[in-house]
Amino acid sequence: MTRLPPGSTIGILGGGQLGRMLAMAAARLGFKCAIYSDHRGPAFDVASATTLGRFEDLEAIARFAATVDVVTYEFENVPLPTAAAAARVRPVRPGPKALEVAQDRLTEKAFISSLGIPVAPFAGIRGEADLAAAVAATGTPAILKTTRLGYDGKGQARIETAAQAATGYAAIGGGQAVAEGLVAFTEEVSVLIVRGLAGDHVVYDIPRNTHSGGILRRSSVPGGLTPRTVEQAHAIASRIAAALDYVGVLAVEMFHVPGAADPLIVNEIAPRVHNSGHWTIDACAVSQFENHIRAIAGWPLGDPGRHSNAVMDNLIGHDIDTWEALAREPGACVHHYGKHEARPGRKMGHVTRISQRAP
Amino acid sequence: MTRLPPGSTIGILGGGQLGRMLAMAAARLGFKCAIYSDHRGPAFDVASATTLGRFEDLEAIARFAATVDVVTYEFENVPLPTAAAAARVRPVRPGPKALEVAQDRLTEKAFISSLGIPVAPFAGIRGEADLAAAVAATGTPAILKTTRLGYDGKGQARIETAAQAATGYAAIGGGQAVAEGLVAFTEEVSVLIVRGLAGDHVVYDIPRNTHSGGILRRSSVPGGLTPRTVEQAHAIASRIAAALDYVGVLAVEMFHVPGAADPLIVNEIAPRVHNSGHWTIDACAVSQFENHIRAIAGWPLGDPGRHSNAVMDNLIGHDIDTWEALAREPGACVHHYGKHEARPGRKMGHVTRISQRAP
Repeated sequence: MTRLPPGSTIGILGGGQLGRMLAMAAARLGFKCAIYSDHRGPAFDVASATTLGRFEDLEAIARFAATVDVVTYEFENVPLPTAAAAARVRPVRPGPKALEVAQDRLTEKAFISSLGIPVAPFAGIRGEADLAAAVAATGTPAILKTTRLGYDGKGQARIETAAQAATGYAAIGGGQAVAEGLVAFTEEVSVLIVRGLAGDHVVYDIPRNTHSGGILRRSSVPGGLTPRTVEQAHAIASRIAAALDYVGVLAVEMFHVPGAADPLIVNEIAPRVHNSGHWTIDACAVSQFENHIRAIAGWPLGDPGRHSNAVMDNLIGHDIDTWEALAREPGACVHHYGKHEARPGRKMGHVTRISQRAP
Repeated sequence: MTRLPPGSTIGILGGGQLGRMLAMAAARLGFKCAIYSDHRGPAFDVASATTLGRFEDLEAIARFAATVDVVTYEFENVPLPTAAAAARVRPVRPGPKALEVAQDRLTEKAFISSLGIPVAPFAGIRGEADLAAAVAATGTPAILKTTRLGYDGKGQARIETAAQAATGYAAIGGGQAVAEGLVAFTEEVSVLIVRGLAGDHVVYDIPRNTHSGGILRRSSVPGGLTPRTVEQAHAIASRIAAALDYVGVLAVEMFHVPGAADPLIVNEIAPRVHNSGHWTIDACAVSQFENHIRAIAGWPLGDPGRHSNAVMDNLIGHDIDTWEALAREPGACVHHYGKHEARPGRKMGHVTRISQRAP
């Protein structure tokens, strides 16, 4: 197992805020970062090298990979041929299997289910002809989702009755889709697990998450799970990570249904650092970003312990205009991603409010 | 008073590790950073723009200043004409007076003394003819120091008796110098004060510092001063900062002599972020680096409170080779500056060990 020494270069596919925070964490450890993206994003301002190119340009990807020591990515929709082109030149971590599974909701659900892990009732839809059977299988209300390229609530339609299925299916544009039965959950939580090259892993405290309009708004720790539920959550996350032979940070989003036979139901996974782990920058000695870099560089994983309680709020669209007031607030850690235009629904920054945890 | 919005560009003169940590703190707030330096240093890897040029090239400095919104510096030996050239184009913060005072030990001591603040006995030396009188004034043992360009113990010679004065003076190369009487101090502490554009200020908890070979080895908080001494230290630092009409982080190094009529004696000041404040990155919501950026950008100053106890150790020369062991240590925050060659005496990184503070 090779351990990359400081001074090595980390290649990151994608130039958004996750790439930016990964690059800053890498710099703390003495690594250089090279970013490859199809547009100038926030990561470009903190990298030692940047490449603007299409992800489909496999020769450019191969040339980029040759300039770095390891390749990682900050978004799960990296095309598989792109990851494969990079992997022919340098190690790509996490590996292609995680991308393959996470890019298709149907594959993802089938995969997780095959590990004996509870998921919401689901059924695949290849065309209108499958709608009735799918909705019969999941029951209603249900959510129809495109199998690919959905994020932050995009590509989703909720239907209350079977009669609405055709309309909902049309609203998401038809094509490959999945119907999911609704889970009557009490809260949403996410497990941020970091798995090392040697198969070791660490897990951060489990935040409780609040979404609205399909977008994460708030993550808080402590998240309020009982020790027994935390143990179950760890078991689920580590089983998934091991089955993917995963390296790096993996986020596993779960619904919590206290008192149910299966109190934790996996919603989805993200093969990357995750918005619900941003609080680790300010409340932990080693953040999710640093631990991702440590994992893919073959370093010892960092202690995921947190020194403070934390509430992370996303600053979405014009929320960012409150930066002056936030900057005055004791205990508020303000993060601004440096994006120019505050479009509605766009993640512009976040604020983590830390407070003393009970001894 | 102009408040620079996120997206503005901070210009930093100097490209070392302090510039690197300033650039990373600026990025957190959504600022871009442009670095100007006469050699490729660690800051070059995390900046959005970099310029390699001589500090004496005033036209290049003016062109650089025109590309940024405010200029700051990460080392106190920025030539005054350089700072002046930048200041004709953009605000330079901290201002020229701080540079002028801090660049000359004799000016510095006379200035601090003129504020009624205790300093060690000192006397200026312009040539060999002044030696006897100077050493008579300070007593022995004494330290002879060049007035300019000394740092990390360079340009200093300790003499035990008046008879050694000529040898010591020759050892530091003669020229403009200052003799300083030794202070029988118990410990060294430093006050990290941040002064805003409007004259407001905040002060971090005062670390206790350990030096060896003239180089800072360790800074610890809490530093152990009594509340009354802390109050005196704050009064001294804020008087100096106000007299310099200072903007940004100012470090005031002091000797502590418990029980003396003057328990705090100022050793020297540094008009910049300071090595003894590196622990603030990991133990505070807002680090010294972020607060420096906030100050020079006209932002509200951040709460300097710390959430953890901290012990920061510099990793000097081959100390850095211990990075793997440090990476395994729970609570250890490892910082590697990405410098290539671990020369003796070179600051290669630091580690801050944080632990829970008493409630």
